[in-house]
Amino acid sequence: MAVSSARAALVGAGQTKFGALKDGPREMLSTALGQAVASVDRGFDPGALDEAFLGTLGFSGWQLGNSSALLAEAAHRPGMPVTRIENACASAGFAFRAGVEAIESGRCEAVLVAGLEKMTDSPSARRRYWLGVSGDTEWERLAGLTFAGVYALLASRHRIEHGTPPEALAEVAVKAHRNALLNPNAQFHKAISREQVLAAPRVADPLGLLDCCPISDGAAALLLVRADRARRYTDTPVYVAGHGAGSDFLAVQERPSLTGLAASRRAADQAFRTSGFDRSALSLAEVHDCFTIAELLALEDLGLAPPGGAAAMTLEGATAIGGRLPVNPDGGLKAKGHPIGATGASQIYEVFLQLRAAAGRRQVPGATRALAHNVGGSGACAVVHLFEAG
Amino acid sequence: MAVSSARAALVGAGQTKFGALKDGPREMLSTALGQAVASVDRGFDPGALDEAFLGTLGFSGWQLGNSSALLAEAAHRPGMPVTRIENACASAGFAFRAGVEAIESGRCEAVLVAGLEKMTDSPSARRRYWLGVSGDTEWERLAGLTFAGVYALLASRHRIEHGTPPEALAEVAVKAHRNALLNPNAQFHKAISREQVLAAPRVADPLGLLDCCPISDGAAALLLVRADRARRYTDTPVYVAGHGAGSDFLAVQERPSLTGLAASRRAADQAFRTSGFDRSALSLAEVHDCFTIAELLALEDLGLAPPGGAAAMTLEGATAIGGRLPVNPDGGLKAKGHPIGATGASQIYEVFLQLRAAAGRRQVPGATRALAHNVGGSGACAVVHLFEAG
Repeated sequence: MAVSSARAALVGAGQTKFGALKDGPREMLSTALGQAVASVDRGFDPGALDEAFLGTLGFSGWQLGNSSALLAEAAHRPGMPVTRIENACASAGFAFRAGVEAIESGRCEAVLVAGLEKMTDSPSARRRYWLGVSGDTEWERLAGLTFAGVYALLASRHRIEHGTPPEALAEVAVKAHRNALLNPNAQFHKAISREQVLAAPRVADPLGLLDCCPISDGAAALLLVRADRARRYTDTPVYVAGHGAGSDFLAVQERPSLTGLAASRRAADQAFRTSGFDRSALSLAEVHDCFTIAELLALEDLGLAPPGGAAAMTLEGATAIGGRLPVNPDGGLKAKGHPIGATGASQIYEVFLQLRAAAGRRQVPGATRALAHNVGGSGACAVVHLFEAG
Repeated sequence: MAVSSARAALVGAGQTKFGALKDGPREMLSTALGQAVASVDRGFDPGALDEAFLGTLGFSGWQLGNSSALLAEAAHRPGMPVTRIENACASAGFAFRAGVEAIESGRCEAVLVAGLEKMTDSPSARRRYWLGVSGDTEWERLAGLTFAGVYALLASRHRIEHGTPPEALAEVAVKAHRNALLNPNAQFHKAISREQVLAAPRVADPLGLLDCCPISDGAAALLLVRADRARRYTDTPVYVAGHGAGSDFLAVQERPSLTGLAASRRAADQAFRTSGFDRSALSLAEVHDCFTIAELLALEDLGLAPPGGAAAMTLEGATAIGGRLPVNPDGGLKAKGHPIGATGASQIYEVFLQLRAAAGRRQVPGATRALAHNVGGSGACAVVHLFEAG
């Protein structure tokens, strides 16, 4: 493949375990970054970094504002420009996009992107408050609409228009938990059955407890360099082949359709337009499954299934490891965990492993091209990246 | 001057009045953006925008997370990629830098940058909590160090090392209030005397009430285009001639010196290096005077006064309108107001007016080159932009 200076390449990636962690945010950033540096085959000196981007919602108030400096400290580079980006659950995806563009523009030669969230140290009432801040405040949050409630509206509408069966939603969760058994960093290591998902206590009908991603702590770090310098660091870089981003009305009541997220469609269309490859060339996809319905919406919005076709695709096993298009082999937000600001970076961490054939027992055989899809809140923004093995 | 596609030019700017506003955030963004569009001499179609960046701290919880979509809505461009950037009080400065780079990279032809904060709808105890989140949480905020307290430490140290007299701090406030009398958008329209500043109730010694900027609501919007397209929009564009950014340890206890902000020095050095002109060529400067001591630190950190020399420069009137280097002709954070996320964009709004000779009674005669300096929190990050008239 062509390797120009105007492309970006991943040469290292790391992440903490996801779950309820004892470490604080400073330690979590250091752990993820330390792993990322250690993963660079021929070594990486943080002194080479030109700039960094931190994706975090700032959940729980530990360092709600001005957290970007902590990333420079973790990299032992106080002084380096760092920008904190907050686009709700898509914070790290947008931070990665900023990092990629800093390389693609020719401005930077090496960039650090990290994602971070510390959620489990808040009492549960406060957690509900914090999760709500990613939806519309004036028309949704203050009216009592929860985040699960928004996705329940989307799931109901999808069922009305496409006849989506509850079993398809349940199968998303079953697959996620099965994949997470193969991921040592995942929050859940417990297989579940369709019957358990369908019988779980309702959170916001038709979504039950096992349709929802958990509350998680976690951090992830990614090292990007100019593509034409990548082989100084490793023989197996992962190239960023395309990217796209989009937005939508914040309040779902303003949107013309509830059976998909327009922001995801816009992001995917732009990403495929700017990359050199077709949807059919994908070896795997990391999609934003904050609730089970979200994975079905993603498959359709990204053009990986026809409208209304994601349920059948899921039920026939096409999205399982070993299927036609494995989706979320790491367990996804549902079972790997969803530390909000870290999620987008963790998805790309998984892509990095998979495209280097380093994903261990959950490896997708022969993976060469992958997609990562990160959604902010209930779809007010979304970002998609496409990758190919070096 | 050379006008290449790789430079960015301001062709429009707008802002709300600063102070306690009745409008909510959506209306504030619409007002600022409407003014920015109306300021473009030959008209501007928001349909031409490729992307937008929003700087906001998310103070008070009105829309704490995921607020970027609101900017797309205000521009009647739901769908456009928008990134929220939060670097504390430097949020809009860093958002502007991201917008400039989106143009300079060749990726975008037209970009919207906005800054926003709604602060006065919070009760005062909550305000103290929110302001503290821009300092270090683990070592400062939870130990009870307030924001005024941090700057009081810097002021004390500056006095010890440089003999900075209280009258110099007071003169910063006197000048700010005098300039604000000439700015219809300013929060304060009231002249004050040195004696009043020195006699005001102490907030954190040596800083008194009149050494501190106020709590403010406000929004500002800036329209950037490729420099080689700027004259389609106006005969008097304002070009971005250079920019720089830097960071520092978040907690002041980690920093080797307290008599300046290293992040500001790093940002300024980079900005002057990347621009075509010298410090002596500046017609005016907009600097980050959240407390009176901050303006003195800025003058020294930016290389506009020698170390310890800002007090004398201020006392001799060099920084007044009509002086050798007018500083904060709009009244600065101190008297124009400091709606946190809006401040960096408002500084650039002032530069836009001044370099187009449109600043009315506060116009700096013959202004051709200007600097804008925006600091995050107590100096954990800073960003500097340099501008020249077209």
